[in-house]
Amino acid sequence: MQAVSGEALRRALFAPRAVALVGASANPDKTTGRPLRYLLRHGYAGQIHPVNPNRSEIGGLRAYPDLLAVPDGVDHAFLMCGRDEVLPAIEACGARGIPCATILAGGFAETGPEGAALQARVAAAARRAGVRLLGPNSIGVIDTAGFACSANAVLEAERLLPGRYGVVSQSGSMIGGLVSQGAARGIGFSTLVSIGNEIDLTLGEVAGLMLRDDRCDAVLLFLEAIKDRATLADCAARAQDAGKALIAYKLGRSQVGRDLAATHTGALAGDDRIADAVLHHLGIARVTMFDSLIESAPLFRGPDGRCRPSPGRRVAIVSTTGGGGAVLADCLGALGLDLAPAPAAVRSLMRQAGISDGSGRLIDLTLAGTHPAVVQGVIAALMADAAIDAVAMVIGSSAEYRPDMAVAPLLSWQGAPKPLAVYTVPAAAASQRHLVEAGLAVFRSPEACAESLRARLAWRPPATDRALAPSEDAAAARVAAMIASGALSSPDEAVARSVLDALGIAGPPGEIVTSAAAAAAAFDRLGGPVAAKIVSPDIAHKTDIGGVVLGIDTPAAAAEAHDRLTDLARKAHPEARLRGVLVQRMETGVAEAILGFRRDPALGPVVLLGTGGVLAELFEDTALRVAPVDLPTAREMVAGVRGLARARGYRGAPPGDTEALARAVVALSLLAHCPAIAEAEINPLLVRPEGQGVSALDALVVAAQP
Amino acid sequence: MQAVSGEALRRALFAPRAVALVGASANPDKTTGRPLRYLLRHGYAGQIHPVNPNRSEIGGLRAYPDLLAVPDGVDHAFLMCGRDEVLPAIEACGARGIPCATILAGGFAETGPEGAALQARVAAAARRAGVRLLGPNSIGVIDTAGFACSANAVLEAERLLPGRYGVVSQSGSMIGGLVSQGAARGIGFSTLVSIGNEIDLTLGEVAGLMLRDDRCDAVLLFLEAIKDRATLADCAARAQDAGKALIAYKLGRSQVGRDLAATHTGALAGDDRIADAVLHHLGIARVTMFDSLIESAPLFRGPDGRCRPSPGRRVAIVSTTGGGGAVLADCLGALGLDLAPAPAAVRSLMRQAGISDGSGRLIDLTLAGTHPAVVQGVIAALMADAAIDAVAMVIGSSAEYRPDMAVAPLLSWQGAPKPLAVYTVPAAAASQRHLVEAGLAVFRSPEACAESLRARLAWRPPATDRALAPSEDAAAARVAAMIASGALSSPDEAVARSVLDALGIAGPPGEIVTSAAAAAAAFDRLGGPVAAKIVSPDIAHKTDIGGVVLGIDTPAAAAEAHDRLTDLARKAHPEARLRGVLVQRMETGVAEAILGFRRDPALGPVVLLGTGGVLAELFEDTALRVAPVDLPTAREMVAGVRGLARARGYRGAPPGDTEALARAVVALSLLAHCPAIAEAEINPLLVRPEGQGVSALDALVVAAQP
Repeated sequence: MQAVSGEALRRALFAPRAVALVGASANPDKTTGRPLRYLLRHGYAGQIHPVNPNRSEIGGLRAYPDLLAVPDGVDHAFLMCGRDEVLPAIEACGARGIPCATILAGGFAETGPEGAALQARVAAAARRAGVRLLGPNSIGVIDTAGFACSANAVLEAERLLPGRYGVVSQSGSMIGGLVSQGAARGIGFSTLVSIGNEIDLTLGEVAGLMLRDDRCDAVLLFLEAIKDRATLADCAARAQDAGKALIAYKLGRSQVGRDLAATHTGALAGDDRIADAVLHHLGIARVTMFDSLIESAPLFRGPDGRCRPSPGRRVAIVSTTGGGGAVLADCLGALGLDLAPAPAAVRSLMRQAGISDGSGRLIDLTLAGTHPAVVQGVIAALMADAAIDAVAMVIGSSAEYRPDMAVAPLLSWQGAPKPLAVYTVPAAAASQRHLVEAGLAVFRSPEACAESLRARLAWRPPATDRALAPSEDAAAARVAAMIASGALSSPDEAVARSVLDALGIAGPPGEIVTSAAAAAAAFDRLGGPVAAKIVSPDIAHKTDIGGVVLGIDTPAAAAEAHDRLTDLARKAHPEARLRGVLVQRMETGVAEAILGFRRDPALGPVVLLGTGGVLAELFEDTALRVAPVDLPTAREMVAGVRGLARARGYRGAPPGDTEALARAVVALSLLAHCPAIAEAEINPLLVRPEGQGVSALDALVVAAQP
Repeated sequence: MQAVSGEALRRALFAPRAVALVGASANPDKTTGRPLRYLLRHGYAGQIHPVNPNRSEIGGLRAYPDLLAVPDGVDHAFLMCGRDEVLPAIEACGARGIPCATILAGGFAETGPEGAALQARVAAAARRAGVRLLGPNSIGVIDTAGFACSANAVLEAERLLPGRYGVVSQSGSMIGGLVSQGAARGIGFSTLVSIGNEIDLTLGEVAGLMLRDDRCDAVLLFLEAIKDRATLADCAARAQDAGKALIAYKLGRSQVGRDLAATHTGALAGDDRIADAVLHHLGIARVTMFDSLIESAPLFRGPDGRCRPSPGRRVAIVSTTGGGGAVLADCLGALGLDLAPAPAAVRSLMRQAGISDGSGRLIDLTLAGTHPAVVQGVIAALMADAAIDAVAMVIGSSAEYRPDMAVAPLLSWQGAPKPLAVYTVPAAAASQRHLVEAGLAVFRSPEACAESLRARLAWRPPATDRALAPSEDAAAARVAAMIASGALSSPDEAVARSVLDALGIAGPPGEIVTSAAAAAAAFDRLGGPVAAKIVSPDIAHKTDIGGVVLGIDTPAAAAEAHDRLTDLARKAHPEARLRGVLVQRMETGVAEAILGFRRDPALGPVVLLGTGGVLAELFEDTALRVAPVDLPTAREMVAGVRGLARARGYRGAPPGDTEALARAVVALSLLAHCPAIAEAEINPLLVRPEGQGVSALDALVVAAQP
């Protein structure tokens, strides 16, 4: 059988003509008994075929002993059988031409090698049989238009609210949380999928199916780990084409969260900062509060339905309650957003309405000053002001008792030219629901409001893989040639230095010498003071054995250093291949940075910039981006590392050559095009005074495992 | 008239026999018309006397032309008149023996000097007349037992939910938010006060009145700025006596929040970190999310109703949804709390119930494994385990559809021996309300749940002003004697050095010299290398003019440095008084710290410890406490500065003398007892290897303005 994809797959998954429930229990309260009940409750119009060898009837429907016995026309099999019955069931799907199956059972890769082996056999069988698989470990699929094929207890609800968001979740149970919390706010969904172990259908592919659905404006992702950047990238590109948003909540901000995600999904959770960089790179907005995942989507919908990047992060706050406005402003400030002052047009409107314009920071209309025409006029003026990137409206008690005052004037602002967020200080359920139904972003808490605005204003469309400039192409080619020549077979500092040379990243002048006399001669040629370092592909941490001598200021001392280092290295690492001693002119600068490149097995190549020294590591003060980066992105990175304040000219000190630093970031990031290199690190990268460039004082390159 | 206080004041404020509404409008929708309507709606049983010279009747009640005309027996006047009519109204209150008045009008200190002058006159008039004042800028008082005397529109509600929490708020409108959000959760209040400008009744005194009320278990504070530490301390002590909690939400985590608080209240918002330290010192728990202010109070109520400090910050998470449990764990981890692993007793219970104990980190009962007896048994085992400080229960869909499973077994855990937090992933309003009514802490979001647990586990009872040890008394006395002798009249580094000597904080050996020859001789006595610094009470920033020479390694160089420094200082600051040049032996250590003491005008003395160097400032990596501190607190501070990792023996490096560092923190904090000193700073304070103490390389003392 030819495996289905695209529209045919979407129909089979979310709107099958008939569904087989394999392993359906006759007990309607058991996990395996619920899907039948839920399908009926939520109006599935197709045929349902329970499969259970011990029953001839379940819930008033004829039950079949196995898949081979069910009538033709089944598009979707929900496999609720035990782990060991999955493989034959998949083969039966293939035999019966059933194009897709969802696997409920756990006990696969997340449990260890034996489960992983079984999972691989299941995947192979499905490929052979042409059956597309969801799961294992999937609690099922919910389409609110009439296919609630899931064991999720949230389907006990009398009614499923349809709505304009799709959901793909790596946690089955959190789908229940989204449906329930959404319903409490009047927010419904189109389709919700528990993605499970992703042995065939990936998060990216399923989100892609949702994006092709006209009912769906945005897809919300609940992530534990990103297992595959490529399909996510593909889906992000599709979202961009359709002008739809992808919004993600991802576990793993803490180590304990990462550990749990790993045990829960059987996947390595990886470095959360890399995931963050990848999401940003792909144009997937990341929110950090669960409420934001439910509430933020309308912020990403522009006047024509499309999301567009915001030029800045200046938010104007309009309030009917000074206290509530101040609370939101404090939250915004704590997240690094700027409070936009009231523009002259707004101040004039306020004065006309007899409202004090106060400090001009909060636009506090006050309870007494709030009238529909004033609110309407102020919002319109803010939407028209080029110095404002987003508007937040904070409504006090009037949201509950006088919805005509501040709520009603907002109802027409769906698809406003700029993101418009509404935070109601009181619970005000009826007003919140009206605003939600009008397509506005309504927040229950100031914290979710602020962090959703941050995510929205930071959002950028997916980065396109940029074409390399000819010089960059040439640099990458030079490195590739070095690799082809075998130079990377045992990389030491000298090799690393050649890689940097090929990329155009300068370092201090230096020579590798193999005798005391040559060291003294090198000193004379270079001019002092110099540093001397042992060079060996087998000694990674040369400082640990005292393999570096700094501040050598006579030829004799250079000679002595050569002998001492050689001796030291021989004693500490008798088997190490010694290439010699690197004598390097010592240079000074205004700051030290650390610049690194690495490939994450799941997430791909990234480049990382931080301050040098031990404090930087303690403070995790780094900027990290998907590699390669362009110069504007590299400049953003330089600006984003707090500890590089010194390089930027902190407190009137002379600034360093930050432009050269940014160019070095771009250059190192080109290693993304050199698959033979797994990792590279320059530490320290000296930032010299403005106009004098940077200098890589020490470098390390790690070859990829062949 | 004798001003009332204590119980008499409480009755006059919250349960007056009769109330006069001065400036009451006949329009029931106007701000000044609402309180009459609200009093009637919410069942005020006393007499209401509207005062309005233009009306003989308002809302069916007889209106009076002025306060002099109202009948006897008025305990409380709500002054809704304009700003300029407040003063005569206060005088009339005095004349009529009305013991307390609430002032609605704004336009006082928050508007500038003229308003401040009027405010001072009003305060003086009230003192003369023996009238206690709430406000100005107070929206009023709400007592849910029957005195809703406020213009807050939240009183439009049909019914006010009584409850066990008092509220004091510096924002009037946020009271509406608390009442509404509380009602939506089934959480009511006893008394709510909008405190306004605090010209007489302070936040501390009003909270104290609430604490003496048996209806009230805890007082929630909405703070913009802490204006007065003393009355807050008094009220904190009262809370501790009563075993009741004080929980504060405070604006000002961001600069914009601080600016807004300042414009809003007419008070300086001050340094938020100092406010944080003061709240912690006073045993007032600080939460950072508005939801937490509403939801967290039951966490602070122990088995006998009293709150007790927790030994650690280990939280066990029990869940019926792995995803929800992981979300909460990630939030806890991001806040630095520890996830307690499942104890053996719990794992055994899980195995008996046929539930996989998984990784043993989350106690995930799973939806299928959740039965009342299992939940009850697991919670009991966790409550009995000494290695667990708090328990969080995460309930999935069963909270909504099977409340008998995981909700019902919790209902008996009010006043559990350890804090018990419940987070329901679905909206589950009915279950949430049952749990709230059973006295449990129920959270709508994982973020508020996590941060409330953090606040609870960090909570300590108010610190008592500790008695100084005889040696400490002696140290403070030595400094006091120096002050009395006039030494502080123009403090320079030598004076600062003597202060540190008096406190017992060591520094490198050194001598002040006034000639080149003396400098050379000092070098010989001290042994090289030495540093030389200009000493002048008039040159605060000596490094800025190059007034410090380091690494002097010959007597001749010391002599030369003397002349050069003297020359330099004379040129840069011709008028400066030069005391000489300090020649100091140079010392080395494993880390540098900065140790400071300062007095905040509103919040009092604090001591601050940070890492030395420019990065520490960039990262705001400091520990700050109310001074004086004891040794355990000083050790906490040393452990709390990330950048001091090096001093603690980072990555196998030899550790520094952190114990001596803690002793130096205690010693400098004793300056709290020396009012003549406003500020002191040691920068850098060298941390030498273990057993070798610390050394104050440079110090500065600032005398208090007389």
